[in-house]
Amino acid sequence: MKVLITGFEPFNKEKINPSYEALKKLPGEIEGIKVVKAQVPTVFRKSIEEIERLIIREKPDIVICVGQAGGRSKITIERVAINIDDANIPDNMGNKPEDEKIFEDGENAYFSNLPIKHMIESIKKCNIPADISNSAGTYVCNHILYGLLYLINKKYPHIKGGFIHVPYAHEQVIEKKNVPSMSIDDIAKALYCAIKSLKVVL
Amino acid sequence: MKVLITGFEPFNKEKINPSYEALKKLPGEIEGIKVVKAQVPTVFRKSIEEIERLIIREKPDIVICVGQAGGRSKITIERVAINIDDANIPDNMGNKPEDEKIFEDGENAYFSNLPIKHMIESIKKCNIPADISNSAGTYVCNHILYGLLYLINKKYPHIKGGFIHVPYAHEQVIEKKNVPSMSIDDIAKALYCAIKSLKVVL
Amino acid sequence: MKVLITGFEPFNKEKINPSYEALKKLPGEIEGIKVVKAQVPTVFRKSIEEIERLIIREKPDIVICVGQAGGRSKITIERVAINIDDANIPDNMGNKPEDEKIFEDGENAYFSNLPIKHMIESIKKCNIPADISNSAGTYVCNHILYGLLYLINKKYPHIKGGFIHVPYAHEQVIEKKNVPSMSIDDIAKALYCAIKSLKVVL
Amino acid sequence: MKVLITGFEPFNKEKINPSYEALKKLPGEIEGIKVVKAQVPTVFRKSIEEIERLIIREKPDIVICVGQAGGRSKITIERVAINIDDANIPDNMGNKPEDEKIFEDGENAYFSNLPIKHMIESIKKCNIPADISNSAGTYVCNHILYGLLYLINKKYPHIKGGFIHVPYAHEQVIEKKNVPSMSIDDIAKALYCAIKSLKVVL
Repeated sequence: MKVLITGFEPFNKEKINPSYEALKKLPGEIEGIKVVKAQVPTVFRKSIEEIERLIIREKPDIVICVGQAGGRSKITIERVAINIDDANIPDNMGNKPEDEKIFEDGENAYFSNLPIKHMIESIKKCNIPADISNSAGTYVCNHILYGLLYLINKKYPHIKGGFIHVPYAHEQVIEKKNVPSMSIDDIAKALYCAIKSLKVVL
Repeated sequence: MKVLITGFEPFNKEKINPSYEALKKLPGEIEGIKVVKAQVPTVFRKSIEEIERLIIREKPDIVICVGQAGGRSKITIERVAINIDDANIPDNMGNKPEDEKIFEDGENAYFSNLPIKHMIESIKKCNIPADISNSAGTYVCNHILYGLLYLINKKYPHIKGGFIHVPYAHEQVIEKKNVPSMSIDDIAKALYCAIKSLKVVL
Repeated sequence: MKVLITGFEPFNKEKINPSYEALKKLPGEIEGIKVVKAQVPTVFRKSIEEIERLIIREKPDIVICVGQAGGRSKITIERVAINIDDANIPDNMGNKPEDEKIFEDGENAYFSNLPIKHMIESIKKCNIPADISNSAGTYVCNHILYGLLYLINKKYPHIKGGFIHVPYAHEQVIEKKNVPSMSIDDIAKALYCAIKSLKVVL
Repeated sequence: MKVLITGFEPFNKEKINPSYEALKKLPGEIEGIKVVKAQVPTVFRKSIEEIERLIIREKPDIVICVGQAGGRSKITIERVAINIDDANIPDNMGNKPEDEKIFEDGENAYFSNLPIKHMIESIKKCNIPADISNSAGTYVCNHILYGLLYLINKKYPHIKGGFIHVPYAHEQVIEKKNVPSMSIDDIAKALYCAIKSLKVVL
């Protein structure tokens, strides 16, 4: 089994993105599951194009996108992505779509087809707080998850796909007031445990 | 130089107290500073008596009490303790004082005489979020800090003393909603860095 | 123009539901818009049945369901409802569905067809904090919104429908720690301003 | 009986200060208690000088200072003020003291001599959430409360004094994310109920 896992570029004036920093700490194989890591641009459209390019190249069984959810205190796995882009801040190429559909011919929403509750329980057993989330927002995180699930639905139905949101890393909140954070090591551990738990999908 | 550092017993239905769990991970010596660790009861009066017993036995140069501040996201070092016990929940022996002075002949408050801002900067340099706090509450944490500073003021003026509040450990919030937490390892790292920074006190 | 606006029964041990308490304070007409108020049960299925019964009886142009979002500090208008029931606590008749579709033949999600950003701006101009929300959860609030939009989509396409979440009322948090709240009067004012702004829909 | 109640000037880029806006709504007499209202500068030193000037001119029995605690969701009455100025932002005249004593000959802290728990219960009975607070910070709010209690202690022992912190007003958070707020009317109602409850002090 092969898992493709992606992290984002830093955005919104942050110097790092904890999603990609954590990825760097993952091994290339977890209990027999091959792990392919990649960074994707925090850019509408280009992020989805990059996901499809990686799917074609890597032929993964599972695709997990990881992103930063600044302000959340737990690892959260997203249940659903909705067909809307509505940005409060520009992406890394200056795009700031407002109330635009992601794909005209896509459904209003797609549910992740990963065993998300099973993954959450597995992360919790690894002693990292985790929970389900019912909204990935309307920025690039929701966008890439929607795009991934759209691609799975239209062209790659054998692939399982989903999205994991991670808190700020400690180094990002040193100068912020009262914002929760997690160490990169803890985030990497959560991703490790989530991937390991996917053996059940086989 | 010798540092006496104390953690509390679990209280309020928690199974662990992150203050003492983190202590267990500290070595007996940090860059030439001898580290003596002890657990104190989460009990009014008895906690202060235990502090004095330890001071007499260990003759420390510095005393740091550590306690759990459930809900805070950062390591916080307390600036001050006030002469009041006002408990919302009973302590571990069932005491629940309301609006009682801790020592009739004590001052209204005592400021910690540790270099707290220096310690905070040192913890932050170790990549763990830390901040100053202006209130240790009115439960056993404030009580023990007040007692320690009262003892220093009245009988042991050569000792430096203070209090570090730590967030819930991850394992404590697994079944709680939206509560920040930190790994025991991160908490221990913060304590390590705080103690190491005390070389300037020499 | 006629607006049907509904509030919920109290649930989860609360003595009141701020959604219905605020409704009681609304007049029967707002600047020429007829306002019909109703309470609906906090019960899966029955709440949607009641909505359809009211639609048939009242023939409204617009249906707004209002519900309590304990913990939020602002009035929030929901963008979307998803086709899933996943309850953490039982509803008022003891139902606790887990990961069940609301309608087998429904879409994965429906977007509210009310001018929600216009309504939010109107509430803010009335000096009440308001924001958009991208998730109504997976309890009865999301359930009734999904049901309403499903009915609009399948049978009543001329109706506009949506959902407004309101904070706890002050009286609900008197004995809670650090939970935001709003007065019933402020909540009613927000609903008044939201309805008044719907003249543009005409 | 005469109560002197003060509010602050706006500070830190805010256009209003809810403490003074609420004061404007109070009547000149509450159930036989004369109420004198005044605005004080959000400036170290000058605020205390203004308090003494007002005490000399008005000869009040009770002095209540009111200030803004942005981020708190409830009305909070302060228990204690500590002998320290430690500003994160400049005051309205550009002063930014760091770790400075307020009065060299003052005690480390003074406790409010108002019946604060009685006042809190009274505000709650008026249906406004209220709680005790154990820290007024180290900015101008703590400064003025310390100064007031120092003056009472040294020169005006017949006066009762204290401090009430109020949340942001709604209009201040319209463009902020997820920050609790209260209407000016609710804040004024809380102050009204607090003053009314002081008849017991007579």
